[in-house]
Amino acid sequence: MESLSVELGSRSYPIHIGAGLIGSAPLYAPHLKGGGVAVVTSEIVAPLYLAAVKRAVSGARVTEIVVSDGEQAKSWQTLERVFDALLAARCGRDSLIVALGGGVIGDLAGFAAATYQRGIPFVQVPTTLLAQVDSSVGGKTAINHARGKNMIGAFHQPLAVIADVATLDTLPDRELRSGLAEVIKHGLALDAAFVDWLERNIDLLLKRDATALTHAVKRSCELKARIVAADEREAAERALLNFGHTFGHAIEAGTGYGAWLHGEAIAAGMVMASELSLLMGQLKKTEVSRVRELLHRAGLPVKGPALAPEKLLELMSIDKKAAKGKTRFVLLESIGRAALRSDVEESRVRAAIVAAAQ
Amino acid sequence: MESLSVELGSRSYPIHIGAGLIGSAPLYAPHLKGGGVAVVTSEIVAPLYLAAVKRAVSGARVTEIVVSDGEQAKSWQTLERVFDALLAARCGRDSLIVALGGGVIGDLAGFAAATYQRGIPFVQVPTTLLAQVDSSVGGKTAINHARGKNMIGAFHQPLAVIADVATLDTLPDRELRSGLAEVIKHGLALDAAFVDWLERNIDLLLKRDATALTHAVKRSCELKARIVAADEREAAERALLNFGHTFGHAIEAGTGYGAWLHGEAIAAGMVMASELSLLMGQLKKTEVSRVRELLHRAGLPVKGPALAPEKLLELMSIDKKAAKGKTRFVLLESIGRAALRSDVEESRVRAAIVAAAQ
Repeated sequence: MESLSVELGSRSYPIHIGAGLIGSAPLYAPHLKGGGVAVVTSEIVAPLYLAAVKRAVSGARVTEIVVSDGEQAKSWQTLERVFDALLAARCGRDSLIVALGGGVIGDLAGFAAATYQRGIPFVQVPTTLLAQVDSSVGGKTAINHARGKNMIGAFHQPLAVIADVATLDTLPDRELRSGLAEVIKHGLALDAAFVDWLERNIDLLLKRDATALTHAVKRSCELKARIVAADEREAAERALLNFGHTFGHAIEAGTGYGAWLHGEAIAAGMVMASELSLLMGQLKKTEVSRVRELLHRAGLPVKGPALAPEKLLELMSIDKKAAKGKTRFVLLESIGRAALRSDVEESRVRAAIVAAAQ
Repeated sequence: MESLSVELGSRSYPIHIGAGLIGSAPLYAPHLKGGGVAVVTSEIVAPLYLAAVKRAVSGARVTEIVVSDGEQAKSWQTLERVFDALLAARCGRDSLIVALGGGVIGDLAGFAAATYQRGIPFVQVPTTLLAQVDSSVGGKTAINHARGKNMIGAFHQPLAVIADVATLDTLPDRELRSGLAEVIKHGLALDAAFVDWLERNIDLLLKRDATALTHAVKRSCELKARIVAADEREAAERALLNFGHTFGHAIEAGTGYGAWLHGEAIAAGMVMASELSLLMGQLKKTEVSRVRELLHRAGLPVKGPALAPEKLLELMSIDKKAAKGKTRFVLLESIGRAALRSDVEESRVRAAIVAAAQ
C-alpha cells in the first residue's frame, strides 16, 4: 500500500493506494464515530463492491443508498433521494458517508455530505481510474443543472481516500482509457519525468498491471495534491489542472453529454491545446507529436468530433472558467510545464481546432 | 453608525448597524467585483427596500430575484428558482448576491451563495430584528426538508452585514417582539449587564427607538460574534446560543411551523429551560421570575402551547442537537451565564414543562 497526504491544515487527509484495500477494516475504523455509515453507490458498483465495504465497517449500522448509474445521477432528484434516505435512517453529524463508485458518485455523495446538516464527514472509495486520479482529490463536489455541469456544489474535503486499484479490473476498457487521459494530463501539465515514465509503461497500464497502476495513481494524486494544497479554492495554479479542459468541455457539450467520455473529450482537447501552444510559439512541433503519440497509444481520440470549429468556439465562450468574458487558456510551454494565457486571439483558437483535425 | 468585526481569520467580516444604512453606497462598493449583483428578496420586502438597494449599487448590473414570503421559501423548489435566475443572468464567481430580507431570505440566499458554482460572495442586508441579531451572524445557511428544518445547508460567511434599524419601522409588532426574544436570549445566556440594560430599555425598544435598537443589535451581535469567532463550527460553546431552543424547536414542531413565531417559541422555551435550571438546583427562584418578567414585558409568551408534556418530550428526543441519542440542555447557572448539561433526567424535563405552564 502506498499513502500520501493532501496538506490542507486541519482538513488534511490521507490517500491510500493499492490492490485489495477496499475491504481493509483498519482504513475505515478511524472514521467511525458511532453514528452509523451511509454508503452511497450505484446500481453497477453495488453488486461488485458493496459487500466488501460492509464487511470492512462491520459493527457499524449501515444504510445502503443505491442510485442509478451515470451522469444523470448528479441531479436534484437523486440528491433529494440521498437526503431522504439519510433522514429516514436518522443519520446525524456523527454519521459517515462512504462514496463508493466513480466520479459521479463522489460528486453526488460528497455534495450530500457537504450540505447534509450543514456538513458531515465522508470517505471516498473511488472505483474508476478517473475518480482515483482526479475527482477524489481536491474536495470539489457538485451536481449538474440543466444550464451547465457542476453548477451547484461545494468544496468539502473527505476524511480519507481509499483507492483500490484492484477495482479497476472490472472497469470497461473505454473507461480505463478515459481515466488514463487525466493521468497523462497531470504529466503533460506538471511533470516531464512522469511523461517519460508513462511513455515507457503505457502498455502495462492498459494491461491493468497493479504495480504500474498504483504508481500512476499515486503520482497523479501527488501532482494534484501539491496544487490543491497550495491553492484550495480554484485560482491561478489550480487552473493548470484544467489543461485540455476548455476545449474538452466544449466537445462534451457539443456532442451531448455522455456521447464522449470525459477523458476522451479531454484527450482531443489536449491535442487542440497543444496545437494552440504551437501556434502561440510556445511548444515545438516534435512535442505536439509526442502528445498525440502518447494519447494514441493509450487508445484515446486525438481528433475532435465532427463539429464545426465555430460551434466549439461558441461553446467555449460560455465556459464558466472564462474570466470577465475572456476565455483563459491553459497552454504548454514544454512537455510537463503548463501556464495560463488570456491573450489568445479567437482566430488562433480556430486555427488550432483545424490543425488538431488533420 | 456602529460597526463591529466578526473575527474569522481570512473570512472575517464587518457588521454595520445604524438607521438609514440600507441605501449607503460606500457600504456595498468594496464588494462589487464587476460581475453584477443578484438581489434575493421577498414579495413583502421588495416594494419597501429593493429600490434603495438598487440605487446604492447603481452602476452594477442588477438581477432581481423575488421569492414568496415566509418559511416555505426555504425549499428545494425556491432554491432551484434562485439558481435558474442566477444562471439565466450568467452570474459568475465575480457576481455578488445580496440577501435582502429576514432570516428566511438570509438562509435561502446564503445557501444559494454557498453552493452556486461551489460558492460565490454575498452580503446580508437583514430587515427583521431576528435576522439582524441572530441569523446574519455566524454563517449558517440552510433550507428545510419535509423531515426537519435546516436539514440541508452550509456554513458560508458573508462579506459584510448591513443592519439598518430604520427598516424595523415597517416590521409588524409581533415580529419585532419575536426578534427581541433572541436579544433577551443573548443577555440571559451570556451577559448579565446586558440583561440589566434590557430591563431598563425594553419600553424604548418596543417603541422602536433607533438609538436603543442600534445598541441592542450591536450588543447582541458582539455576544454572538465572540462565540462564533471562538467556535465557527457548532460545538460546545456555540451550543450556548441555543438557550431555550431545544424546548423552542419542540414547540415549533408540535404546533406546526408558523403557528408560533420562532422568537415566541424560544421565549416559552427559555422559561422552560429556566424552570429546569431551577429544578437542577442551578438557578434561584427570583432569577426565574426575572426571566419571566422581562419576556412578559417584551410582549412574549411565557407559557408553552396547549400540548401534552409527553408530546414535547417526544419531539425533543429527535432534535438534531441531541448528541448520541441523549438530549443536551443549555441551562442557566445564573442570569447571564449558561452552561451545557447532558445528565438531565426525563422526569425533571417533564416537571419543568409542567412548572412553566403554571
